Amino acid sequence: MKLFSSVNDISDLKGSVEQALIQKADPFANQSLGKNKTLGLVFLNPSLRTRLSTQKAALNLGMNVMVMNLDKEGWALETEDGVVMNGTTVEHIREAAAVMGQYCDILGFRSFPKLQDREEDYSEGLFNKFVKFSGVPVISLESATLHPLQSFADLITIEENKRTAKPKVVLTWAPHVKSLPQAVPNSFSEWMCRAQAEGMLDFVITHPEGLELAEKFTPGAKIEYDQDSALQGADFVYAKNWSSYRDYGKTVQGAESWMITHKKLEQTKVAKVMHCLPVRRDFELSAEVLDGPHSLVIKEAANRVWSAQTILKNMLEGLK
Amino acid sequence: MKLFSSVNDISDLKGSVEQALIQKADPFANQSLGKNKTLGLVFLNPSLRTRLSTQKAALNLGMNVMVMNLDKEGWALETEDGVVMNGTTVEHIREAAAVMGQYCDILGFRSFPKLQDREEDYSEGLFNKFVKFSGVPVISLESATLHPLQSFADLITIEENKRTAKPKVVLTWAPHVKSLPQAVPNSFSEWMCRAQAEGMLDFVITHPEGLELAEKFTPGAKIEYDQDSALQGADFVYAKNWSSYRDYGKTVQGAESWMITHKKLEQTKVAKVMHCLPVRRDFELSAEVLDGPHSLVIKEAANRVWSAQTILKNMLEGLK
Amino acid sequence: MKLFSSVNDISDLKGSVEQALIQKADPFANQSLGKNKTLGLVFLNPSLRTRLSTQKAALNLGMNVMVMNLDKEGWALETEDGVVMNGTTVEHIREAAAVMGQYCDILGFRSFPKLQDREEDYSEGLFNKFVKFSGVPVISLESATLHPLQSFADLITIEENKRTAKPKVVLTWAPHVKSLPQAVPNSFSEWMCRAQAEGMLDFVITHPEGLELAEKFTPGAKIEYDQDSALQGADFVYAKNWSSYRDYGKTVQGAESWMITHKKLEQTKVAKVMHCLPVRRDFELSAEVLDGPHSLVIKEAANRVWSAQTILKNMLEGLK
Repeated sequence: MKLFSSVNDISDLKGSVEQALIQKADPFANQSLGKNKTLGLVFLNPSLRTRLSTQKAALNLGMNVMVMNLDKEGWALETEDGVVMNGTTVEHIREAAAVMGQYCDILGFRSFPKLQDREEDYSEGLFNKFVKFSGVPVISLESATLHPLQSFADLITIEENKRTAKPKVVLTWAPHVKSLPQAVPNSFSEWMCRAQAEGMLDFVITHPEGLELAEKFTPGAKIEYDQDSALQGADFVYAKNWSSYRDYGKTVQGAESWMITHKKLEQTKVAKVMHCLPVRRDFELSAEVLDGPHSLVIKEAANRVWSAQTILKNMLEGLK
Repeated sequence: MKLFSSVNDISDLKGSVEQALIQKADPFANQSLGKNKTLGLVFLNPSLRTRLSTQKAALNLGMNVMVMNLDKEGWALETEDGVVMNGTTVEHIREAAAVMGQYCDILGFRSFPKLQDREEDYSEGLFNKFVKFSGVPVISLESATLHPLQSFADLITIEENKRTAKPKVVLTWAPHVKSLPQAVPNSFSEWMCRAQAEGMLDFVITHPEGLELAEKFTPGAKIEYDQDSALQGADFVYAKNWSSYRDYGKTVQGAESWMITHKKLEQTKVAKVMHCLPVRRDFELSAEVLDGPHSLVIKEAANRVWSAQTILKNMLEGLK
Repeated sequence: MKLFSSVNDISDLKGSVEQALIQKADPFANQSLGKNKTLGLVFLNPSLRTRLSTQKAALNLGMNVMVMNLDKEGWALETEDGVVMNGTTVEHIREAAAVMGQYCDILGFRSFPKLQDREEDYSEGLFNKFVKFSGVPVISLESATLHPLQSFADLITIEENKRTAKPKVVLTWAPHVKSLPQAVPNSFSEWMCRAQAEGMLDFVITHPEGLELAEKFTPGAKIEYDQDSALQGADFVYAKNWSSYRDYGKTVQGAESWMITHKKLEQTKVAKVMHCLPVRRDFELSAEVLDGPHSLVIKEAANRVWSAQTILKNMLEGLK
């Protein structure tokens, strides 16, 4: 594996989940694989779970890890080509990526969208340039449009906690005070649609009208504008805010009733509740739900280690 | 050991000092103990000594270390319960602590007091929440009211450098330009009072009237308002500024004469001088003292490794 | 080796290049040398290449590495002696350096010049104090006036890529929008003059009149004010901006024609082009040159690992 930026980089979805659970059962079994191999984690945006879980995964595999918070410790990168660099950007992504590729065997890269120009964000220009110029295998630590390590961990969590062979999984939009990227819901949908296509689950998306995700990430998903109908008989409820794809980057106000509460969950099959974190308590999800027995949010975060470790293991095996 | 936040978490004080000196004499003897164990160090406030010495201690024990500067690399944490998170805080301490507990076998946590509301600071609400929700053993890297790794290192330093069986130790308030927490003097007093109770030393505190520390941390200590009297016959002089506990957080101005100088030390038994660092030269302690033969400040900082390593070793032994 | 801050700390220049190439050919051959040894990297200014390459070098040698971004994670250091510290500086370099020396076997230190007072910058007071008070071997990670790990990597790169026994190396000033230190050109010149004295190459410096480097770093170098003449027959062209040494810290405006382009390189012997990075594209060097077959900039950055590893190896061998 040379690139992990989407579910499309996974050939065998079920097999990958099985691999992850094998890693989880015996975390240090492949410790010689990473000996003298270096993982570089490059962040242009803040991170808690991704930084720590990916670092932990690499250490489990015996790798060295170097973390670079380019937004804090480095300097402004130029990402456009053909620009005369006489302004405030100090280094071009071409050189920065190439240099980091010289020091690291595998790189991870995080860069959020600007949420101003949809074409720009959805072209994934920055992430793709980093991949192109680094010259080594690259893992997305969340790009402008996708967050595959999160979604892989979500699928692992669903497989571990399902009580029926083919559970009903509902992705529901949730309120928020800020304009957030679509990366997590795009990515979750992409992975769930693939899992649905492979007969692993049924997938429904619910959100206020106008908040439709990009169609390329929702093939086969059932879209419901009525949250109550969508939640009927759900086994898993995945709550997440996102800003508009159509009216790009705009937030929806006055939709506080979309918050997931115990009352709302009564319509489900005692559904397990998921969220990628960080979560706004009593705004996206009620505190009672987060602190209650149905919440999977901490287990879900814990599974970030095993999604990362599975991808890193596959990449290490592919190194010469 | 599941928690290290106070001298009260130590059952055998003399034995702990002996353990520390054994670690110091042979730092790498327990290197297999920490294999595949991860220490997470979480800082909500800046750190130099604590970060490096605790990291070094963990490496000596064969552990992996992940450092998280939440104030710089992360985001604003919500610490209150029952709050609708529609403001600027991005994640609740409940989730943040629980998630870090999933990735780390032992956690260290630093959070300074706000010095605005005494009840709030002295309840140690934030530190206690972190402990409660992390679900793993926690070491205080300095909390609102205590700094036990520092005080343990101070006691080690006194034991190493004492010239009589029962030395006289004097904690003296020193001038400063800022309003500082009481954590270091509270903690030093707590440890010295315990050591005094065990017959290891005699302990005196001296400060301007009105700067009394919280009584719970000074059981058995002799309080002297006259610095010259207090210094008579001292073997160790520990200088440190603190703001008022009574008139909470207020500084005392115009007390520059409390600075420790060679002249002042003439009244002592050629006392050794200690300070936790960072120190304001020629304001808390004179440069001549800091650079002279009586200063223990660098040796004291060096001993931070052995207090941390002793605590980490005990915690590692307690892990299943 | 106890100090690496200049080419003068190298006794055998050719032998050091050979050592570096041996490290490069077999990076992990000396992994037991660094076992249980700790490298501390202290940055008062941002770093990408230096941080990662030096960290990688240390890991290759089996060392532990602790990185301290004092400008971001720490606090303001006092560097003057005899100052009453009643202002904004929190800790004196005397204590900070001494403490870090207690936790680390070898230290690296980076501090840029202020470019305001030439005497102050060229005295290297801050770097020298750090060396003096740390008490352990110190590597310059770029000081006010020199950047020896870069220059050593540059010499390695020239040796690897030369097509004649005694290549012509040209250091050319290049335009920039900011006022930059003289550290990289001083250092490059210092190393090239030494290499020239040992018969390894011919060295020419070209820049607009008035931008002469300090003479102590240019012994034996040929100075040419006409860039075209200087480039005649060059085998290596090293482009770099610097601010004025004479009119200290001043930039030169309106010299955009000094940018290195394909057109300019026609006068050379198909010269290889070097730059320490970060580089301002289409302002210092044209994009066509950076992306073309003559550029060595990425290989040069990669060689930073081997200059650092060679120095670290020598320092480790000198530890008791």
